[in-house]
Amino acid sequence: MNLSDRNKKIAEKFKTLHGEICKKFLPHENEDFIVTDDWEKKKLGQGRTVVIDGGKFFNKAGINFSSISGERLPESSVGTKSESTNIPFFATGVSVVFHPNNPNIPTAHFNVRYFCTFKNNEVFEEWFGGGFDLTPYVLFEEDCVLWHKNAKKACEVISDDTYNRYKKNCDNYFYLPHRQEHRGVGGLFYEKKKFSNVDEGIDFSDQMRAAFVNSFSKIIDKRKDLPFDNKLKDFQRFRRGRYVEFNLVYDRGTLFGLQSGGRIESILMSLPNEVSWRYKYDSILSPDQQKLYEVLKKPRDWAHEK
Amino acid sequence: MNLSDRNKKIAEKFKTLHGEICKKFLPHENEDFIVTDDWEKKKLGQGRTVVIDGGKFFNKAGINFSSISGERLPESSVGTKSESTNIPFFATGVSVVFHPNNPNIPTAHFNVRYFCTFKNNEVFEEWFGGGFDLTPYVLFEEDCVLWHKNAKKACEVISDDTYNRYKKNCDNYFYLPHRQEHRGVGGLFYEKKKFSNVDEGIDFSDQMRAAFVNSFSKIIDKRKDLPFDNKLKDFQRFRRGRYVEFNLVYDRGTLFGLQSGGRIESILMSLPNEVSWRYKYDSILSPDQQKLYEVLKKPRDWAHEK
Repeated sequence: MNLSDRNKKIAEKFKTLHGEICKKFLPHENEDFIVTDDWEKKKLGQGRTVVIDGGKFFNKAGINFSSISGERLPESSVGTKSESTNIPFFATGVSVVFHPNNPNIPTAHFNVRYFCTFKNNEVFEEWFGGGFDLTPYVLFEEDCVLWHKNAKKACEVISDDTYNRYKKNCDNYFYLPHRQEHRGVGGLFYEKKKFSNVDEGIDFSDQMRAAFVNSFSKIIDKRKDLPFDNKLKDFQRFRRGRYVEFNLVYDRGTLFGLQSGGRIESILMSLPNEVSWRYKYDSILSPDQQKLYEVLKKPRDWAHEK
Repeated sequence: MNLSDRNKKIAEKFKTLHGEICKKFLPHENEDFIVTDDWEKKKLGQGRTVVIDGGKFFNKAGINFSSISGERLPESSVGTKSESTNIPFFATGVSVVFHPNNPNIPTAHFNVRYFCTFKNNEVFEEWFGGGFDLTPYVLFEEDCVLWHKNAKKACEVISDDTYNRYKKNCDNYFYLPHRQEHRGVGGLFYEKKKFSNVDEGIDFSDQMRAAFVNSFSKIIDKRKDLPFDNKLKDFQRFRRGRYVEFNLVYDRGTLFGLQSGGRIESILMSLPNEVSWRYKYDSILSPDQQKLYEVLKKPRDWAHEK
């Protein structure tokens, strides 16, 4: 099989995975608010971006598949010292974010991706990356436990301590130093993971999808009918500012997208459509907010609780 | 005069300048919405932050004075190659942003600052920086012409071509490569400007203040009673997303603040409190919006028009 066919086959698997996520979550939304864009960008690649913007159920949601290639990989993605800079690359992945209207449902993020570089018409390096993480506005401890127990189970196919490492990665990655806060209650995060063959990596990506879909669906079902007031809605808008701060200041995925001349609308679809920066808004916290801030300041070992 | 007294005297001048800006613009706002915070941060310095958050006239406004010093200047402020990294520094400045509620009034930003570093208890290097720029949501060409003509006049005290250079700096600096857009219609921007003595630099900073206050006051008076509808308000919230993108991804002042362990509430007071990221919201533009986008894409030589 030549390289182009090989790439196409891998991309096809990620596209199927993308479709399964759509099938599971789109039924929550009134279809008038769902936009599907099949796009192609010259000298870059193609993808499918499914977006909900100002919907009934989701304030904003993005489910993005893309498959890109180029003559040189930007430094931001592999670091200046990697031998894989300045040689041809192929990348494909699925990136998902859900910002539900109801502040009792957390924001959820999921991402899986495959990268490879080529030398002399052969694969030179290849790896997988991905994970998922949860950003609540109201802390329901049992949801965090569920989220992490499912994450742990999904990692067991690799090894017993994989969950611990990926969970720690996630806590370290989704961190805002200037706020001394984590973005949420974490989940899993892995980068540059090598598998003995591509199929194993794809299977693991699909395992990630299954865990994410299973956990987030259960959380949605539990929380979607809880009432909320304007005060909680304001707090959600305020906390979404932190989400934007993380994505624009620290997220390597976003920086890679901006630097590689990616499709801006797809890269920044993760940014919510109702955000507010307030002055000293969280200098006085309600007891519920305090509970939330405690776990944002100091990650807990949810999978081993209860 | 010892160094500490010298620094204090310079900071005092910037504080006076800060007070004059407050005196001019705060009367627009209902005083219940004005918060004044005199703050002090150990091992950093002190300042006065005046903020309006969700006011009647200003959706958000920040008028900040600060005076800080430390044992080593962060690289972000002077670059890795400067001889002024890793030696003691002193910095003082005034930073201002106004986000009025009425979308017919532009967002306006103003900043002046003084930096110096010390070696063997003597001033080693010193410079001034600053400028102002305007970000309209509706393009009134005569406002841009006024803004730039005043800017040009204020620069004449240095030399005839100073305006041209600072205007170009400003266009280059307030630019979002990923959007291929400038933040607004520009103004002035200068960095590392050396004067023959400190007093001259302070006088020039005050000249900048006078031009800013004069121009923006006139624009406010002309536009504050113009009516606007929800559609225009939505467009303002959407465009404010670009403001956030610039400040968090590209602004060196913000990055310096975050890296130097500055006071986060003061550094990020420039972020508006009503922002929305929408999907492909500007793929179809109204004729008025088109006019605005044209000048955001391609800066015009406003000072020499009409």
